Formats: sequence, structure tokens, C-alpha cells
Amino acid sequence: MLVQKYKDMLSGKSVIRELSEFATARGQEIGYENVFDYSLGNPSVPAPREFTDEMIRMLKQMGTNELHGYSPSLGIPGVREAVAMSLEKRFGLPYRKEHIFMAVGAAGALAHAFRLVTEPGDEILTFAPYFPEYGPYVNLTGAVLKVVPPDTESFQIHFAKFEEMLTEKVMAVLINTPNNPSGVVYSAETLERMADLLRKKSAEYGHTIYLISDEPYREIVFQGVDAPCVSAFYDDTIMCYSFSKSLSIPGERIGYVAVNPACRDAEDMVYMCGQISRGIGHNCPPSIIQLAVAKVLDKTADLSVYETNMNLLYQEMTELGFTCVKPGGTFYIFPRALEEDAKEFCRKALKYDLILVPGDTFGAPGYFRMAYCIDTEKVERSLAALRRFVKEVYR
Amino acid sequence: MLVQKYKDMLSGKSVIRELSEFATARGQEIGYENVFDYSLGNPSVPAPREFTDEMIRMLKQMGTNELHGYSPSLGIPGVREAVAMSLEKRFGLPYRKEHIFMAVGAAGALAHAFRLVTEPGDEILTFAPYFPEYGPYVNLTGAVLKVVPPDTESFQIHFAKFEEMLTEKVMAVLINTPNNPSGVVYSAETLERMADLLRKKSAEYGHTIYLISDEPYREIVFQGVDAPCVSAFYDDTIMCYSFSKSLSIPGERIGYVAVNPACRDAEDMVYMCGQISRGIGHNCPPSIIQLAVAKVLDKTADLSVYETNMNLLYQEMTELGFTCVKPGGTFYIFPRALEEDAKEFCRKALKYDLILVPGDTFGAPGYFRMAYCIDTEKVERSLAALRRFVKEVYR
Repeated sequence: MLVQKYKDMLSGKSVIRELSEFATARGQEIGYENVFDYSLGNPSVPAPREFTDEMIRMLKQMGTNELHGYSPSLGIPGVREAVAMSLEKRFGLPYRKEHIFMAVGAAGALAHAFRLVTEPGDEILTFAPYFPEYGPYVNLTGAVLKVVPPDTESFQIHFAKFEEMLTEKVMAVLINTPNNPSGVVYSAETLERMADLLRKKSAEYGHTIYLISDEPYREIVFQGVDAPCVSAFYDDTIMCYSFSKSLSIPGERIGYVAVNPACRDAEDMVYMCGQISRGIGHNCPPSIIQLAVAKVLDKTADLSVYETNMNLLYQEMTELGFTCVKPGGTFYIFPRALEEDAKEFCRKALKYDLILVPGDTFGAPGYFRMAYCIDTEKVERSLAALRRFVKEVYR
Repeated sequence: MLVQKYKDMLSGKSVIRELSEFATARGQEIGYENVFDYSLGNPSVPAPREFTDEMIRMLKQMGTNELHGYSPSLGIPGVREAVAMSLEKRFGLPYRKEHIFMAVGAAGALAHAFRLVTEPGDEILTFAPYFPEYGPYVNLTGAVLKVVPPDTESFQIHFAKFEEMLTEKVMAVLINTPNNPSGVVYSAETLERMADLLRKKSAEYGHTIYLISDEPYREIVFQGVDAPCVSAFYDDTIMCYSFSKSLSIPGERIGYVAVNPACRDAEDMVYMCGQISRGIGHNCPPSIIQLAVAKVLDKTADLSVYETNMNLLYQEMTELGFTCVKPGGTFYIFPRALEEDAKEFCRKALKYDLILVPGDTFGAPGYFRMAYCIDTEKVERSLAALRRFVKEVYR
């Protein structure tokens, strides 16, 4: 018999997917350039030239057995070493190869992190607004994802609610800064306060509460914004990284787990990841992609377009009267809708060919997300549509 | 707290890994060319030129967003389509895109197949000798792997034991033909008899018993051997494939699940794989690798060296008095050891710089495996060492 829980999931509808399908259909009708599709968080800038060049160089110069041979399940040693050195140089923490586990994208990294520290029935806390895939990612392991309601003033952490929900059943806290969907970067003050609370509660409950830090947007931080290194605040931090956004290669599924060197069992945890892999069919990321990213660890795609787009949108949105926390990074903005039901608001926006995603999906009803990883020229053209939408419907 | 079951696994020793470490250490001592390392099933022939050329062509000609963009979680539609067409042409079964799920290697494909059809506590049967990773692959899902003892005459299936163990708790049967470690190809007679039994028992128990067919060695079949298509014998077959061996690219982690078009819920099962992915961090295989293999589906590396090596070894082994089923494919041979304890036999062989793997690991004590995916020149040199070993120790 087929397993019912997966069969049942087939009838679940993804709002984002439905919107994206609408956008595609509408695009076929009026030309895709006339649909202002803010639904998908898909990097739009080219991958750095160096990544492509390195791939071609290896394909031309290396023997195929060396290039395409099995990687050890923890990752290629030289690649792990290079990642550790880059992290040490950047953040001043003593990362070594032994703290790094190469993973098939951030999803792969998170799948290992969750299994490291939770048994079925244990709880993981995250903070709204949050990336909706965290739900199935966690719940299908048998652990339970609980969502702390948002602090809608700042989209930092709602500490009163957090402390209330941080019970003995919580084995890990999952954060994402810079944040999808709010674009907000957690401040040093937020991280310090969170770390203090985690240390206090770990001592009180007699078990470590791990901090799982999902950092795919780490390199997309805007001018004047301080994006502190999460691991520097809390020893028991498991960093999950993906090169998808920094190098604009989301399809190549490459990332890593970096266990904080200050974490008591750091090296064991990396070996445990190798064991977890055997149960989830992970094995290791593709060799050629591991080798290529190792050569461009300190490079990024040209990410400046995201800041340009953010500034255009933020200015227009505030001028139009939207309540909106200014993003510190990512390629998302998360304003308050102009009516209570954001789903209704987004539905009305479709008439203006504006594809916006209601915040309900992200655990923050009443808000909506715009993913502005699109051409600046298109953002500029969308502003007129936004203005018309607001004036005709809400004035 | 860290999860104990994974921590406990760290103390488990892999015999194959230990042997491989011995070989490396010995190689540093006497030169690697003088160590006859038959321990690792690592393809040794170059990847086909066409694969490399296609990778370079795409890197040079395609836009990076198109090339490195997100793949849908079921795989890139054009790639799934190409795989289906190739399977249809080859096996005459009406495969369509809807039956194909692209996976990160055979391990990824199997991880989905197991979760499709078993809940925790359910049983999966496999047949000794078997690939030892099936143990953690299955058991870490919560299902239970049970191993049917070998028919040591032929390394086909021991049907009396099979029928005895095929209880109501069995939800799937897992086979691997051509087989690692025996090199044996299941005959049409074996497959027909197995299918009949599965149909009978499915009807008797009122639930489908799925057949999971792990086929990474499908393209390595020797002259005069008939390797029947497993799916043609049984409707409810889930084929798991990897390009690791056929294209000699094991590090690139690319394969697929192909659900038999005749299977009642085939299309749903592929969609369910996409849901399973969310729970195990799979997402999709790397885009560039998907696109590249789609262009070389009907190509293979030059696999003829494996047959040359097999013939050399089989002839020598039988002349030396080993009991040995002649392999029909793969790059393995699985003779009976010259003393009851194959571990002791393999330990003694180390003195002759012969690295052999005891069959205990594969559920067949008393036998040993040789992985002859090494240069023919080295196989030839190893024969003298084999002769000396047998004559000095066992005559």
C-alpha cells in the first residue's frame, strides 16, 4: 500500500505555485514582460564568470575519474578545508575542516541539522514570518515545528511569546537572518538576547537547546546594515548555508552544515551527519559542483541589483502609504496589506498584473511578500501598476 | 541533546573502509601500483567524451540562469521526458515523463522508493548476497530490512526461504540485478517465478507487495548473457537507476526512479516522491548534471574492460580450485573462500597485498568479493600474487 501521509499531501495547494501558474498563463496572454511577477524567490542575476570558468577549466584539464569520482560522504576534504578557512577569515571563529559537512543545498543541510538534535515528538521553534517549507521539512522528520508569532513592529523577535513557547520539549530554535520573507536582518541586540535566553533555558532544562541558523541570504545585505555572525553569539549553533543566492546557482544544490567550533561535540556532529545521510539517501553533493564552489568561496554574483530594486520599491510603497519595515538584505519586502485579509488584497492586485504573495503562508496574516529578484526595468514599470491599484481600489 | 542512534553508529566499523585504509597505507609503503586493491566498487574507466563535451557546451553557450536555475522537484521536464523515451525504446514499456522522478544518485532514488511503500515497522525483503548499505538505508526509515539467505549454488533466489519469509508484514521486495556482490544476473525464470509469488501473496494478503529494483549495473552485462528487464515481469515495480556506473560519474550523484507504467498509481507515486523529498532534504538533482545526462542517455563509458578483467579472474580462480559462480555482469566476482572463515582468509591474503572483502558483510559468510574495476594490467599482475597466496597457504 502507498503511504497515506504522502498521498494526502498531493491535494495540498501551494499558494505560491498557484500564483506562479497564474503568472505563466497571464504571460502567455499579454506577454510575460507585462506581468509583474513578484511571487518567486529565484535569483535573477548571472552566476559569477569565475564559477563558469572554473567548471570549464576542470572539465578540460582534469581526468574524468578524478573529477567525477565518489566524494566521501562528509564532502571532499579539500573543499571542506577551503570552506573552513573562508569562514575563519570572514568571521574570526576557528573553523576547521572537521566542522564542515558538505550538503545538497540548504534543504539537505537542514535535513541533517534537524535529525542531529531532535527525536520524533521533540519541538523546534521558529519565528514568524518564516519560510513555509520549514513546516514539511521539520514535521516529516517526526519532530514538531512551532511558530512564535511575529513582532510586527520590527520583524525582530517577539521575546515575550518566544519565552512562553520555549518549553522543555524544545530541542532547537531555527532562525533565518537575513529573513525570507521580511528582508529583516536580526540585530546584535536580538541575537544576544536570544542567546542569553537559550543559555538560561538550556541550564534550567538540563539539555542543550541548539540554534539552527539558516543563512542562504548571508551575502545579500544592504549598505549601512550590520549583519552579525549568528554563530559568534551562541556556542551551540549549527549553521546551514547554501550557495544558491550568493552565486546565483540555485539549481546546482550546493551548501554545507558548519558546526560552531565552540560547540562541545562539534566534530562528532559532523560525523553523525554522515550517518544521517545513509538514512535519507543524501550521500554527498556532486563532486564537480563541490570542487567549483571551493574556488569561488569569496566571490558572489553581482548582487547590487537587489538593493537598487529594494530602494525603488521601499520608496514607492511608503509614499503610497504602506506600513513597511525596510529590508536590510535578501530580495524580499513584506509590507502590510491595505485591507485585513491579505489574500483578498493579493487577489485584487492580480487585475493589475501584480503577483504578490499573501503573508498567511509565512505565518503573518495581513502582510504580503514581494520577491524583487527581477530586472530593475521591470520593477520600474511595475510602480505605475502599483499606484493605479492602490488609487483605484483603496482611495 | 544529540540523537543517540546516530552517535552510536559512529563506533560501527566498516570492513570495506578499514580494508581500503589498509590499502592506502600499504600503498604509501610499497607504491600503490603494487597493492592489488579489490575492495572498492569505484568505476575506473573514463566518462564518455560526449558527457564532458556536453557539459562544456552548455557552460559556454547557455545563460547561467537557464543552466543553473531551480529544477522542479520532480526533475526538469525535458530530462524526465528524454529518460522515459529512452526506456520505452530500450524495453518496450510505455514509459512517459509522468513515470519518471529524477534523483540524487541511486541512494536518493531508493530513499524515495522505501518511503513510498513502507511505514515504520513494515518489512522489506532482500536476498543475500546483498549491498550492505541496504541495511541503514532501510532501517533508518523505521522499516525493517530482512535478508533471505543465499542460494549458494547459483546466487539466484532461494525460493523456499523466500516464500517462508514473505509474510503479511512485507510491503516490498528489493532486488539488485546484475548483482553486487555476486555479479550474477537474475534469469527470466527467476524473475517470472518471483513475480508469480508476489502476485499470489499480494492477493492473499490484500495489499500490493511492491518490487523495488535497484539497477545501477544494468549496462554492465557480459557477452552471451541475457539480462531481462525486471519491470516487464511485474506491474508494481519501482525501478531505481543510477548513471554512476554506466557513465563512470559516481561522484555526480544522478539517477532516477521509474515507476512501471502498468503500476496502478504510477503517476501519483511520482508526485508522492516530490512530497517525500521535502521531508528528507532532497529537492532535486543538480540542474547541469540532469541536463548533461539527458544528452547521453544511450551512451556508456567503454565498459569492456570489466569483462576482460572478469574473464582473467574467473579463469584463474577456477584453475586455482575456487568454487565460483561466473558473473554475468557488474565488476564483481564472489568466490567461496578456501577456509570456512572468510574473514580469516581475507586477513591472510593481505600478506600478499591482495585486498579482498569477506562475504559476511554481504550476508554470505564463507565467500569473498573482488571488485575488479581496476586496470587490466594490474589484474594480470595480481594473478601471480593470487597463485602464491593459494599455494603457500592452502596447499
